Amino acid sequence: MFTQIPSGVTAAQGFSAAAIHAGVKASSSPDKDDLMLLVSDCEASAAAVYTTNRVKAAPLYVTMDHLADGTARGVVANSGNANACCANAHEHAEAMCAAAAAATGLEAGQFIVASTGVIGQELNIAAIEVAMPALGAKLSGGEAASAAAAHAIMTTDTLPKEYAIAFELGGQTVHMGAIAKGSGMIHPNMGTTLTFVTTDCAIVPALLHEALYGAVQVTLNRVSIDGDTSTNDMCCILANGKAGNALIDWKNDDYHSFCQALRHVLTWIARHIAADGEGASRLVTCTVSGSRSEEAAEKLAKAVIQSSLVKAAMFGADANWGRVLCAMGYSKAPFRPEYVDVTFRSAAGEVAVCKDGAGLLFDEELAKTVLTQDEVIIEVDVHEGEHSATCWGCDLTYDYVKINGDYRT
Amino acid sequence: MFTQIPSGVTAAQGFSAAAIHAGVKASSSPDKDDLMLLVSDCEASAAAVYTTNRVKAAPLYVTMDHLADGTARGVVANSGNANACCANAHEHAEAMCAAAAAATGLEAGQFIVASTGVIGQELNIAAIEVAMPALGAKLSGGEAASAAAAHAIMTTDTLPKEYAIAFELGGQTVHMGAIAKGSGMIHPNMGTTLTFVTTDCAIVPALLHEALYGAVQVTLNRVSIDGDTSTNDMCCILANGKAGNALIDWKNDDYHSFCQALRHVLTWIARHIAADGEGASRLVTCTVSGSRSEEAAEKLAKAVIQSSLVKAAMFGADANWGRVLCAMGYSKAPFRPEYVDVTFRSAAGEVAVCKDGAGLLFDEELAKTVLTQDEVIIEVDVHEGEHSATCWGCDLTYDYVKINGDYRT
Repeated sequence: MFTQIPSGVTAAQGFSAAAIHAGVKASSSPDKDDLMLLVSDCEASAAAVYTTNRVKAAPLYVTMDHLADGTARGVVANSGNANACCANAHEHAEAMCAAAAAATGLEAGQFIVASTGVIGQELNIAAIEVAMPALGAKLSGGEAASAAAAHAIMTTDTLPKEYAIAFELGGQTVHMGAIAKGSGMIHPNMGTTLTFVTTDCAIVPALLHEALYGAVQVTLNRVSIDGDTSTNDMCCILANGKAGNALIDWKNDDYHSFCQALRHVLTWIARHIAADGEGASRLVTCTVSGSRSEEAAEKLAKAVIQSSLVKAAMFGADANWGRVLCAMGYSKAPFRPEYVDVTFRSAAGEVAVCKDGAGLLFDEELAKTVLTQDEVIIEVDVHEGEHSATCWGCDLTYDYVKINGDYRT
Repeated sequence: MFTQIPSGVTAAQGFSAAAIHAGVKASSSPDKDDLMLLVSDCEASAAAVYTTNRVKAAPLYVTMDHLADGTARGVVANSGNANACCANAHEHAEAMCAAAAAATGLEAGQFIVASTGVIGQELNIAAIEVAMPALGAKLSGGEAASAAAAHAIMTTDTLPKEYAIAFELGGQTVHMGAIAKGSGMIHPNMGTTLTFVTTDCAIVPALLHEALYGAVQVTLNRVSIDGDTSTNDMCCILANGKAGNALIDWKNDDYHSFCQALRHVLTWIARHIAADGEGASRLVTCTVSGSRSEEAAEKLAKAVIQSSLVKAAMFGADANWGRVLCAMGYSKAPFRPEYVDVTFRSAAGEVAVCKDGAGLLFDEELAKTVLTQDEVIIEVDVHEGEHSATCWGCDLTYDYVKINGDYRT
């Protein structure tokens, strides 16, 4: 139904991107781009969801203003500094948009703006302003441009996140792609990390927003790396209509197909953000089924993947399922411990470790093999209903501590 | 007002204790005691608060039953196994009480029972039953007996926790002491870790419970090591009346003095549990003042000491105050970011890092020195009201990951 295609944000028609090294962070390597621009050839429907952290970085407030009319033309984003908790952060976020506008012949109010990096240090806006004309001149379509943009927003990510698909809507081929940065300070609520999605689908802003909100709830919002909900993060989408599909302006079949496509793309992003969590050695997926409600299943699964003790056990490939039950127990979601089954599964096989809330005898060798894989799935059945949810996290490793013990310098 | 005295649970008149190596965990060293008994010469008022985890270990349910009448004579507790999530856990918890009763000439229903260790593995009740007569025969007062009991309940603790005080109530000297085990899976709600308090104060059970509940709320309940609320933990108190003070049976001045004493003892325990958190290299204290309510101040302070990113920064002695504001932002407590001041303080001095929600220029050398101490205090003023709260945690270190990467073996 969805065909993966090359590239990310430039996969959809009419989008171009570029990246450059502006030197936002004095100590950064000249080889590391830290500023990126993404532009649509024509006005696009636009929507975003934002972190619910009470401390929001200035770019989020500026973006909210600029998206008030439900449209945008582009995105400007930097890594290396969060532009948060500084006296002049708001002015600097506005200045980034103004510089992007000057470099592209557009208006400042047509830009979404985002920053990621250390909180509380003044943004080097001069460096950004100096670099912007050259950045604007580099704008182009094609795979290399999207890849460069994906690299430019990385902080402690070890891999860029980039994904794109094609799908049919009423006989037209529609494209959708995304880039994201993940890594640390990730416990999305409501938006997450920085994720930029582009599509050439024709859809009105109100439905675009509703589709985005719904998709984020069951994808990015079900990721946790370290329990820390960032001050800076958002997920936004631009839909420029170039695919020529019939405009989606009510909840018809096309709308539902669009929602599925968006959920598919953001699931890919969510899994890859979790897998590349700061210091992570493996992706830890928890699926809770048999729950009274999807909400309860989600709370249970999220508690499991968020537990420091479960995460440390996953690092050690230790089948310590008692910690899974413990985490479920403090999740505040309803379930009966005496009904719970737990199985660990991976590419290497599966091992049932708990039935009816009590331990099973299991092959420790097999368990070790199952848990020593790139993705480990913790399957929980609470045997109370028909609802399920899947959440994604990663293990807790020495490297997480190392990376975050001295991040500023 | 409170004079620290030697010993812990045997400091109060009429209490004796003992510990022994029963071999609860097959792999444990014969030098490590893992079973302890604590007995009062006469019936004592008794109260306990328990973990609110939905998955509660069997000993907690048995203790609830046994304390239904508000009295008890003793405590029996083991380390090395949690006696949780096993088909016969309840029977084993009852059997521990029966064995303790047989060894002391008391009744099973007069015992509080507690277990701590790995979840989901069958308790070696036979080893406990075999060891119990010798344990009963060893019961004695004195400092050595309390110290032995404090050691016996340790799991990954590096130090025993033991504290006692004397204070005056209506001309009589009253004694109060406690032992506790802490370390990991610690995010109390409502009881915490295992903490056993004894006193020779005369007080009725209902007021003893109220005093305990109130004291735990502002002490043990304000500790977090790793965000994981244990399945097994409780804090209980026995008050045997041997001090000869006028029975406290209403909320008179003596009651309030008693409450202060209990809060004093449990604050000591809370701080020492936090300082000896799994893998911890330092105690991290956060005091939030100027808040609209104590509840809001507590939420803010708890979010700070619980944040993985703040904890990792404290490990690295990195003055990354942006993470403090970030954690406050997702605490769900009300405050205005633009009013917030943050100062780091320790025995080595203090360094103001944030004023009115924005960064201050500060001496990085001094900050490093301030943060490289055994206790670091994060002082936050939100400038909105007159309420404050203090919470205690520790840094996140390589050793936390190491300890929990393979805890079962």
